[in-house]
Amino acid sequence: MNKLNTLRQALKRRKIDALLISQPENRRYLSGYTATDSSISETSGVLLIPAKGAPFLLTDSRFELHASSEATGYEIVLYPKGLLPLLKTILPKLNIKRLAFESHYMLHSTSEKLTVMAQKAGIETVALIGLVEKIRTCKQKDEIDKIEKSVRLNEDVFREIFASLKPGMTEREVALQIENAMVLNGAERPSFETIVAGGPNGASPHAVPGSRPLQEGEPIVIDMGLVLDGYCSDMTRTVVLGMPDKKTVDLFRVVRKAQLSATAAIRAGITGREADKAARDVISGAGLGDKFGHGLGHGVGLAVHEAPSLSPRNRKKLQTGMIITVEPGVYLPGWGGIRLENMGVVEENGCRILNQDTTFLDI
Amino acid sequence: MNKLNTLRQALKRRKIDALLISQPENRRYLSGYTATDSSISETSGVLLIPAKGAPFLLTDSRFELHASSEATGYEIVLYPKGLLPLLKTILPKLNIKRLAFESHYMLHSTSEKLTVMAQKAGIETVALIGLVEKIRTCKQKDEIDKIEKSVRLNEDVFREIFASLKPGMTEREVALQIENAMVLNGAERPSFETIVAGGPNGASPHAVPGSRPLQEGEPIVIDMGLVLDGYCSDMTRTVVLGMPDKKTVDLFRVVRKAQLSATAAIRAGITGREADKAARDVISGAGLGDKFGHGLGHGVGLAVHEAPSLSPRNRKKLQTGMIITVEPGVYLPGWGGIRLENMGVVEENGCRILNQDTTFLDI
Repeated sequence: MNKLNTLRQALKRRKIDALLISQPENRRYLSGYTATDSSISETSGVLLIPAKGAPFLLTDSRFELHASSEATGYEIVLYPKGLLPLLKTILPKLNIKRLAFESHYMLHSTSEKLTVMAQKAGIETVALIGLVEKIRTCKQKDEIDKIEKSVRLNEDVFREIFASLKPGMTEREVALQIENAMVLNGAERPSFETIVAGGPNGASPHAVPGSRPLQEGEPIVIDMGLVLDGYCSDMTRTVVLGMPDKKTVDLFRVVRKAQLSATAAIRAGITGREADKAARDVISGAGLGDKFGHGLGHGVGLAVHEAPSLSPRNRKKLQTGMIITVEPGVYLPGWGGIRLENMGVVEENGCRILNQDTTFLDI
Repeated sequence: MNKLNTLRQALKRRKIDALLISQPENRRYLSGYTATDSSISETSGVLLIPAKGAPFLLTDSRFELHASSEATGYEIVLYPKGLLPLLKTILPKLNIKRLAFESHYMLHSTSEKLTVMAQKAGIETVALIGLVEKIRTCKQKDEIDKIEKSVRLNEDVFREIFASLKPGMTEREVALQIENAMVLNGAERPSFETIVAGGPNGASPHAVPGSRPLQEGEPIVIDMGLVLDGYCSDMTRTVVLGMPDKKTVDLFRVVRKAQLSATAAIRAGITGREADKAARDVISGAGLGDKFGHGLGHGVGLAVHEAPSLSPRNRKKLQTGMIITVEPGVYLPGWGGIRLENMGVVEENGCRILNQDTTFLDI
């Protein structure tokens, strides 16, 4: 069954006549319309999906050409005076009595205006959270192919930059080179702000690249991803220029062992918590349990962070077709960090790793 | 009177005990804290401004150092378990009975959780829109100085890149060079995604730079801006490599005449609608009224798009100290577009244009 029909069924079960989709990845997922929003208050359009009948893409004249060339199967309707006046006209024509909106991607002020307008027209509004996101969690074949291409390009960029890394380059220079190479090689954009964190800076999992020059012998955490054809990649390697010392090698091996242990455990039917535990047990067994302060991984798709979460808090089962990261790490304040991150597809009998790059994975 | 006191007076008039500030530019405007948010659901902190007493910056441990070094005068309070549990503790201690939040920068889903928490604690919530933005609309002297520096750097970057433009370069390459030059010359970041749109791509006012090589003789729309010391610039030039043809020159002259007409009309006391009309009449007079599908301009400050709007829908009067863009354009599907954008300060007796660059303005 296609995505739109799956969604329509879900709407019918909830007795919802139509859903307004404002979340940009959801919009792209369903319609193929690739425009991005510069902010939540500057939208390039919303979808109106009736439970029965053809779907609509509502946008303004700036996006007309773009929308009509991409959102095939959608009727493009322009709103010269804004979304609400258009809805006021179009909803009664479609006989919509119960209209749902995405509570997790609509501003409170917009929801208030929408509700007032709807009430006047005798329409009930329903706040929904995460309905399309849930459908997005398990990827179809063509999506897995696209994600694989995104992973491949990301690895190509990584290797190109890694080959030119030298002590003395600043974290910021390297991050800029990586992001430029992504775009010059055809990526739409980085999927998140690239992390390059040398030595002690690597002790923060969310380090921001700064003016510190890279040094020989220290672990350098590089966490990078890109968007290709809408789909994200996300990979972390920890590399050393010159020779790593014994402490670095020992920590590397613990983290890699944790990653392999989790990879071996992941399959459809185990929970996010169990996947996390497979890695966490290895790190705890090495006496470093308190140095692994984040979850093992997260889903990746049109968004770089999406469901499912591989963490002690997720007791739901993984399903075939989910794409996840496997990224254990250890972080020692004052010394630095080691994180290794691959992406994989959850399959019935295991986890198929999408990465091919093995730089500094097995040392 | 300083900004914080102006805000406190406004809260007292509304009988509000405290305001929660989630909007990132408002947060920076009041506190000086420069952290940015990667998205509306990943905040680097919120301000809690009581109508009486010292203000607070609530954030998590990742931002502690950053916050305490910048938000002087604010008490930094960390939320290890998220914002809501902290508010639940802190609001009763401060004896807050009526708590306002920024309706225009809070997700509906978050507002629902906040309201449930507040009700349990006997606290009333009030949705406010644009209170701090209103204070921000008229700029103080030091803000105008900062914006002028931002405009100047943006023009320097434009001229540096324009000097190296050659047919065959792709839109994406040029956009990337522009954004790199911004950051390497000291900008915090681009203030929006740079537009480079050659030939027919220029027919879309919000074109995304693609793989199309620039060609001689075609109009190339370059719309770019940067953030310097928190303040935004925004400028559009339409340039031609080699010789423009007659059609291009004729359209250029219409757009430039519209821009000059609006610039001459703008002063404190005229409405946004009247400013827009001064340009629109010129374009309509040339028989191109339906090819100018957007408003004439918008305010610029800590945000690249803020009040006031110069458009047919704004019947409010412009005031001294507002900073606005003047950016008429014509867009011909299949052929391309011409847009010319300057920034100016609204003064009592006119509009002082902040731009000095005249590349391809008068041809």
